[in-house]
Amino acid sequence: MKLLVVGTVAYDTVKTPFGNREATLGGSAAYASVAASHLTRVGISAAVGEDFKEEDRALLSGRGIDLTAMETVAGAKSFHWQGEYEGDMNEARTLRTDLNVLTLFDPVLPPAHRAVPFVFLANVAPSIQLRVLDQLEAPKLVAADTMNYWIDSARPELLEVLKRIDVLLINEGEARQLTGESNLPLAGRRILSLGPSTVILKRGEHGVLQMGGGDAFALPAFPLERVVDPTGAGDSFAGGFMGTLSATGSLDRGAIRRAVVMGSVMASHNVEDFSMHRLAGLERAAIEARYVAFKRLTEFEDLG
Amino acid sequence: MKLLVVGTVAYDTVKTPFGNREATLGGSAAYASVAASHLTRVGISAAVGEDFKEEDRALLSGRGIDLTAMETVAGAKSFHWQGEYEGDMNEARTLRTDLNVLTLFDPVLPPAHRAVPFVFLANVAPSIQLRVLDQLEAPKLVAADTMNYWIDSARPELLEVLKRIDVLLINEGEARQLTGESNLPLAGRRILSLGPSTVILKRGEHGVLQMGGGDAFALPAFPLERVVDPTGAGDSFAGGFMGTLSATGSLDRGAIRRAVVMGSVMASHNVEDFSMHRLAGLERAAIEARYVAFKRLTEFEDLG
Repeated sequence: MKLLVVGTVAYDTVKTPFGNREATLGGSAAYASVAASHLTRVGISAAVGEDFKEEDRALLSGRGIDLTAMETVAGAKSFHWQGEYEGDMNEARTLRTDLNVLTLFDPVLPPAHRAVPFVFLANVAPSIQLRVLDQLEAPKLVAADTMNYWIDSARPELLEVLKRIDVLLINEGEARQLTGESNLPLAGRRILSLGPSTVILKRGEHGVLQMGGGDAFALPAFPLERVVDPTGAGDSFAGGFMGTLSATGSLDRGAIRRAVVMGSVMASHNVEDFSMHRLAGLERAAIEARYVAFKRLTEFEDLG
Repeated sequence: MKLLVVGTVAYDTVKTPFGNREATLGGSAAYASVAASHLTRVGISAAVGEDFKEEDRALLSGRGIDLTAMETVAGAKSFHWQGEYEGDMNEARTLRTDLNVLTLFDPVLPPAHRAVPFVFLANVAPSIQLRVLDQLEAPKLVAADTMNYWIDSARPELLEVLKRIDVLLINEGEARQLTGESNLPLAGRRILSLGPSTVILKRGEHGVLQMGGGDAFALPAFPLERVVDPTGAGDSFAGGFMGTLSATGSLDRGAIRRAVVMGSVMASHNVEDFSMHRLAGLERAAIEARYVAFKRLTEFEDLG
């Protein structure tokens, strides 16, 4: 295993202008690991309830994802999120959150998982992210995500996480909230001063800004005429990003940029259908074609 | 003269988090022509009042801008706009608009101006844009801008303008308003079906999306840590864009992309100071350095 993803495997009930889906497979670790599974050998650390369906387990293991650290908690139900998107679909409105098994999630990594070189701490409580960090044995690169709720309610623990990770992936609004800076490049610079050597500012339909090492890389979002369900876009991005880095192990400027593009490739595919239907069945040719399309979308000649 | 800019030359009173400026030189034609003056030979068609200051006329003519079609209307005052920006400064709040001389603006082009190959119809009433279109003798390329007010109040005339121009430059919110499409690529496609062969969707701090000829080009905005005054960003973009195209006369895919980048170069410089202070004094080296910086910001390698 080259990449370990710690986060949620959940059921989502989602409403978008394109329809409704009830209790479909979701969760940050599920999206990230399915995206990464196209690029690298990946495993999940998560907790699910007794209601977790065999077909969903089969979808994940069918993608070659290591589920030995995905614990089924007796007597508990899986985490459930309900939300809807309207208008330009840039932001979800959360209608309901049933934490269920998440309140009991206390990841204890099997010995083999502790030595994994690449780790993605998806959006869970910073205290859980710290518990995982304590168990890792000299990882090569650790990335983390977070959300507004933790910035408000667990800031000290989150700041501790930031000191111990290499890459923070964060929404632009949450970057502003975390730093108190309305100017995004300044917010990014502030985050870099808190610990991570790279920050990836996710801007939804506006793309992504990556900063770090005195370098900045901006990539627009892919202009899709049909965004069916934005759920999991950020986690699919993280899976594509970490999958790319862990596949080659290279961490130079060019490798990080390619990983950002591949994250965007995965995110742009993911939002074209509900749940992870598109991601799960993605062919290598479609992944490469979207990468080339990003190149064509953004390239321009020197002034000459 | 290779480029004619029709629009407003005005006085702006502006408040931003970085300070206030009273009655500084502004207006769509002023911003666009000063930006273009670094790249091509440009002239203005506009009307100003008796209050128009000699120093502002000297600034424009000092940039080599042809002012023979900038009419001073006796007994009238110049157009005056007052607005302020807050927070992420992506949108201006208009506090006051004194049309003044604008109500009398009825551009009659001198014979030499009618044969100009490149024309930018900046944001004025569509009826005025049509009056100019009637006077042009086989221009090579005409671009136009517009705003929410005209989309609401002069839609039939605006649709007539769209049939007769090559390029529409429009804010993303106004593109959605014009087409009723919340999805931006779809809104762009709808605009292309209304006449223009190229549409440039301006997204403020999120950059620009250019569509046309079955091609799409997306460029992020330059990540500036200090945006002092966004006034005139769109018009500076238009000036850089049209200045580049008119300088070489080339209209192929590569030329249009280079022009979009140069538009963004001019816009990004312009917002770094109040009024057109930065634009007016810009050196060729700073223009080229920003172009190279855009390249560095956006380039990435093939998958390999």
